[in-house]
Amino acid sequence: MPKIRIGLIGYGGIGRVHAAAYRAIPFHYGLPADSIAIAGVATTRRETADQASREIGCDFSSDDYRALLARDDIDAVDICTPNNSHHEIVLAAAAAGKHIYCEKPLAMNVAEAEAMAQAVKDADVKAQLTFNFRFFPAIARAKQLLKAGFVGRVFSFRGRYHRASYISSDKPMSWRLKREATGGGALFDLGSHILDLLYYLLGDFSAVNATLDTLIERRPVAPGSSETAPVDVDDIAFMHARLPDGTLGTVEISRMGTGATNDLSFEIFGDKGALRFDLGEPAWLHVYDTRDADSPLGGERGFRKIEAAGRYAGQRAPDWTMSPDFMRVHAECQYQFIRAVWKDEPPSPSFADGLHIQRIMEAAERSSVNGRWVTLE
Amino acid sequence: MPKIRIGLIGYGGIGRVHAAAYRAIPFHYGLPADSIAIAGVATTRRETADQASREIGCDFSSDDYRALLARDDIDAVDICTPNNSHHEIVLAAAAAGKHIYCEKPLAMNVAEAEAMAQAVKDADVKAQLTFNFRFFPAIARAKQLLKAGFVGRVFSFRGRYHRASYISSDKPMSWRLKREATGGGALFDLGSHILDLLYYLLGDFSAVNATLDTLIERRPVAPGSSETAPVDVDDIAFMHARLPDGTLGTVEISRMGTGATNDLSFEIFGDKGALRFDLGEPAWLHVYDTRDADSPLGGERGFRKIEAAGRYAGQRAPDWTMSPDFMRVHAECQYQFIRAVWKDEPPSPSFADGLHIQRIMEAAERSSVNGRWVTLE
Amino acid sequence: MPKIRIGLIGYGGIGRVHAAAYRAIPFHYGLPADSIAIAGVATTRRETADQASREIGCDFSSDDYRALLARDDIDAVDICTPNNSHHEIVLAAAAAGKHIYCEKPLAMNVAEAEAMAQAVKDADVKAQLTFNFRFFPAIARAKQLLKAGFVGRVFSFRGRYHRASYISSDKPMSWRLKREATGGGALFDLGSHILDLLYYLLGDFSAVNATLDTLIERRPVAPGSSETAPVDVDDIAFMHARLPDGTLGTVEISRMGTGATNDLSFEIFGDKGALRFDLGEPAWLHVYDTRDADSPLGGERGFRKIEAAGRYAGQRAPDWTMSPDFMRVHAECQYQFIRAVWKDEPPSPSFADGLHIQRIMEAAERSSVNGRWVTLE
Amino acid sequence: MPKIRIGLIGYGGIGRVHAAAYRAIPFHYGLPADSIAIAGVATTRRETADQASREIGCDFSSDDYRALLARDDIDAVDICTPNNSHHEIVLAAAAAGKHIYCEKPLAMNVAEAEAMAQAVKDADVKAQLTFNFRFFPAIARAKQLLKAGFVGRVFSFRGRYHRASYISSDKPMSWRLKREATGGGALFDLGSHILDLLYYLLGDFSAVNATLDTLIERRPVAPGSSETAPVDVDDIAFMHARLPDGTLGTVEISRMGTGATNDLSFEIFGDKGALRFDLGEPAWLHVYDTRDADSPLGGERGFRKIEAAGRYAGQRAPDWTMSPDFMRVHAECQYQFIRAVWKDEPPSPSFADGLHIQRIMEAAERSSVNGRWVTLE
Repeated sequence: MPKIRIGLIGYGGIGRVHAAAYRAIPFHYGLPADSIAIAGVATTRRETADQASREIGCDFSSDDYRALLARDDIDAVDICTPNNSHHEIVLAAAAAGKHIYCEKPLAMNVAEAEAMAQAVKDADVKAQLTFNFRFFPAIARAKQLLKAGFVGRVFSFRGRYHRASYISSDKPMSWRLKREATGGGALFDLGSHILDLLYYLLGDFSAVNATLDTLIERRPVAPGSSETAPVDVDDIAFMHARLPDGTLGTVEISRMGTGATNDLSFEIFGDKGALRFDLGEPAWLHVYDTRDADSPLGGERGFRKIEAAGRYAGQRAPDWTMSPDFMRVHAECQYQFIRAVWKDEPPSPSFADGLHIQRIMEAAERSSVNGRWVTLE
Repeated sequence: MPKIRIGLIGYGGIGRVHAAAYRAIPFHYGLPADSIAIAGVATTRRETADQASREIGCDFSSDDYRALLARDDIDAVDICTPNNSHHEIVLAAAAAGKHIYCEKPLAMNVAEAEAMAQAVKDADVKAQLTFNFRFFPAIARAKQLLKAGFVGRVFSFRGRYHRASYISSDKPMSWRLKREATGGGALFDLGSHILDLLYYLLGDFSAVNATLDTLIERRPVAPGSSETAPVDVDDIAFMHARLPDGTLGTVEISRMGTGATNDLSFEIFGDKGALRFDLGEPAWLHVYDTRDADSPLGGERGFRKIEAAGRYAGQRAPDWTMSPDFMRVHAECQYQFIRAVWKDEPPSPSFADGLHIQRIMEAAERSSVNGRWVTLE
Repeated sequence: MPKIRIGLIGYGGIGRVHAAAYRAIPFHYGLPADSIAIAGVATTRRETADQASREIGCDFSSDDYRALLARDDIDAVDICTPNNSHHEIVLAAAAAGKHIYCEKPLAMNVAEAEAMAQAVKDADVKAQLTFNFRFFPAIARAKQLLKAGFVGRVFSFRGRYHRASYISSDKPMSWRLKREATGGGALFDLGSHILDLLYYLLGDFSAVNATLDTLIERRPVAPGSSETAPVDVDDIAFMHARLPDGTLGTVEISRMGTGATNDLSFEIFGDKGALRFDLGEPAWLHVYDTRDADSPLGGERGFRKIEAAGRYAGQRAPDWTMSPDFMRVHAECQYQFIRAVWKDEPPSPSFADGLHIQRIMEAAERSSVNGRWVTLE
Repeated sequence: MPKIRIGLIGYGGIGRVHAAAYRAIPFHYGLPADSIAIAGVATTRRETADQASREIGCDFSSDDYRALLARDDIDAVDICTPNNSHHEIVLAAAAAGKHIYCEKPLAMNVAEAEAMAQAVKDADVKAQLTFNFRFFPAIARAKQLLKAGFVGRVFSFRGRYHRASYISSDKPMSWRLKREATGGGALFDLGSHILDLLYYLLGDFSAVNATLDTLIERRPVAPGSSETAPVDVDDIAFMHARLPDGTLGTVEISRMGTGATNDLSFEIFGDKGALRFDLGEPAWLHVYDTRDADSPLGGERGFRKIEAAGRYAGQRAPDWTMSPDFMRVHAECQYQFIRAVWKDEPPSPSFADGLHIQRIMEAAERSSVNGRWVTLE
């Protein structure tokens, strides 16, 4: 395989995770160390760009992402900037013929997302979205079981992503609380993850009935300040959703989930079985099989906690991933992108996936305003 | 205290539980054995009435509940019959001046429930509803903590009652699947329990946005039969709900919760703390306290699993209730009723409580038909 | 079946539980109310005997158990007195031709236990020990699975019973801390329960290697007193044990298990499967089946949490026992005793079982003194 | 800080983990990419050495570790070879003046371990052992709480490491089952980890009473072969242990723990509180505080599940480590070694620590042979 040379755009917390994760891939899959290289990094300030290039060990850095796009020795860009810059950067990168790996959510709204999906299609570049949670082995296992008919007819489903990051009213304003920077609140930030997992496992949504709330409507402009500014995004979003076949589900999204750290979970109920996943125990998938009742010993039905760690296809040292962490799943998401480039195959999760999630989120916002079901076009 | 003489109406599964539970009360509270007596029993058939009186050890039995009401040696009736007979029996019992202990849900609809609440008020008899789940010690503990401000401002709540009792499409029709006998499906049967717990802990609901579904629309008329009949009640009911102060919550009710047996649980999130209860571990309450962070050792925030068993006020032998079972909570619910009679105090849960639950359920049904929020009057 | 008339000896906390449990049996099994009667009660003081007879509703009471034994209208006695009186009462009851139901542990030592086992054999009376924990449905399920070969060859086992009842050094002396009253400490009080469960499931023990400790060696003679008295029984007992086929296990017994309430659990590991039980979740048995790997969907091995509640053979109303509590398992243990009397069959758990547990406990004490393995004769 | 140049010896599964983990350190701590470099690798065969150097991206490789030791551009060696080579390599590396990072267990026996500890002392090189499990944040949290007196007087402790890796009798012989290659079986391989955690948290052991067993005494020489060879190491090791102050604990080590994958856990009970850790939930520490009872709301004692992830001192992006995996804890262990070199401080876990664990293991083996307590010198 040819060496792939990545230009990293943005080097905040998530940019650093992406950088570290690229480095781990050769060890996970027995590849030459230099098969994947971060060839340059761009941030918005000279000092952070310099610091980033030192940590990464790359020769080129800039305070303008366009400088990266202009270089011939960059094959792909990885976009780790705030939501409100995705549209501009993706359009420029596609125009420059770079493959694109972009953090979620894809865009500020459906209109942007549509333009971006069209742009990468027109430019014929590979474009993947960072829905990293898909890459826990337990999720792959769930997907495989669903495909194999383990659950049978789906009766209903439930998803949730709770964090407690905003429960204190003393927590000051930040870009994550401003619509102009993010496009949305908990729904966009947390909801995009759990909605993608449900969509990945169960397919398209056809309608939603959602209620969004902003529980703390003004926050200090700075830590300890008595001056406040308005919060104009949701911090809670509850949703009922329908799949095209009528299957009903419920989704709970909250930044006000007191006691939660990363409380992401889902359940899928069917006539043959059930599945449960909880990010608090990321190495495990819980499965229930109605067929267990037919076993010779009789009556051993019950939820089974099956270990799903150490099962990445092609992984070298299975025990590495006793309980895969955040960086491992990012590495896997990146590896799938790089493989798609190498093999000239469609990457997944695609921008089309990101667009569908954007449509669900926008429908949820409209539903909340009108207090009733909204059908996705 | 004068002896209380109870007439039991209905002796199916739940009637037998009620009968056994009365017998346990004197031991729990150190009362004379004869202070609580089942003085008579009525069912709809002579044979079952005879069998009941033998098990109970009472002298009087009848196949007509009116014969019970006619007796002077009956102080109170306990109604364990199907939902569609509650209205008639309650009105007759109130007219006969008997105190009334009635199984949930109170009635077939709001109109009936209103008439019943009025009737017991007019007759000035004590009337209590069997919302037995309130009487797990963990629920009392949750109530006490909420009152003491442990949770602070409530951000949101979630309740659930899942059973898997109807997941097989081979399961034949029964009275529980017919609206004319029950008034409603999973919403009435399971929902009344979890709705009452949330109402007990958090107060009145002001609006709901619900979706009800019947997943298996026809069932065999008898086991193994190829003839089918229509199911005209819901087997799944998902709900968003508002309290008068705007607090938003979500409720999941399902008879199609594959893998569940009695999966009743709730969570309450607030700015000071959070509470969780799960009937799968009935002896425990999970609490989270944001104030833990201020402890001298620092940073020990986390969900705490506190034992709530063995804490019935006045209970004689604390260890009895390591993990209180179904019968113990029924005994407690009955004991509260009997105490209300003895002390001439208002019983709780009252028929007014039952009426509020009925209003929520009826609003949920209307909401589901219209696909939008419905405000409770 | 003829009516069985029981004389209850002792009416402390556990006596009250026994009394209440007898009352529940007719409802659990659809028996006539008067088929099981407590016909008399004896304690050591007139006032407590009177109070007991009022709660129980029986005509006869005495402050001398011999008065009970002298009565013709008593078929069986139930012994709920401290350990140091069991030997005397059992011998007298056997001599009086009464059937005997006796609380655990059987005796103060092996010599007493042998005499007692011999006495009931000679008198040809039914004699059963109250190893009530055997009667959780999950334990019956475990027994059934072991018999059916579910676990295969047993590799090892582990048992534990932890309580935190004595962790405070302010807790004053009581009879439970005096060898002359109890025969032993945590080993006798808690250990007899978990040792019986392991013995019930796995069979005889052949050797033990134990270490006993008394962590708080002196305690106040009364609450708040500065005067102290020596504790001469163990509050912790750790044990390795061998079965006759060499299978090795470990047992942990402690009254100093900080954080525990009734932390009784066991695990059994075998080449075909594994079992786990935890009294914290008494309705459930955890099973692991190595054969799960051969399922068509592949690789779903994992611990399965199977519900074992509501499964008492012959039980009338299955849902009564969602999570059977202390009283329900006592009722079941009593019911087995009464059935043995009615059917003239050997009762189980028998005095021979109690004697074997006594031998294990005495061997453990000797092992601890000598710091090495002791073989059971 | 000067660049540290590491020579890696051994590149099996664990060697690959070590190599990858070094690469992640700069991102975790914001260091220049080239501050830590793997400058060479040695295995026992040319091909594996070449493959290793390609994955690592280093210029030098050899099939003789002595070639590494001979190079001036190597500051430290990292030993990832089987146990029976540790002694020879450590002595040679110390003689060559290289700092040493060595996989556990330190040696084949106490005699070797003593010589190694002496050699690194004489050569005045930094020498650290890979007890990587110490570096879960939850363990650091436990250590901190113990130091702060959270648990008070320790009543007792329990440790366990179960895997199910050898439960099938079809599993063929391997070097891990031969004493000449490993020095010991489950006790050495798994036991060294859990013993080190207990020692790290509680201090020196003073005596042990252990029983070791080999449950499957012969295994096929190759997969599917009917020829068998003897297993001469333990696959189960149960231990009672004393600390110098008399505190009693119990340790369970097994390769035959049916159903386990990496079932490592411990509990520490004290008069003020208790701690629990379970590797199945590596992000969490469970704590119990007897002082909780004194809170204004009263009676909220219970085990609290506190999140300990994202708390590495100096870590850049806290969310990386939602649930730190195997590679993250290795990186942390390595980072502590590198810091010790940079700061010229004593590294920890030291070879003296490794020697103490070796003494415990050897005493356990002697105890098992003699069936009684053995005191550590």
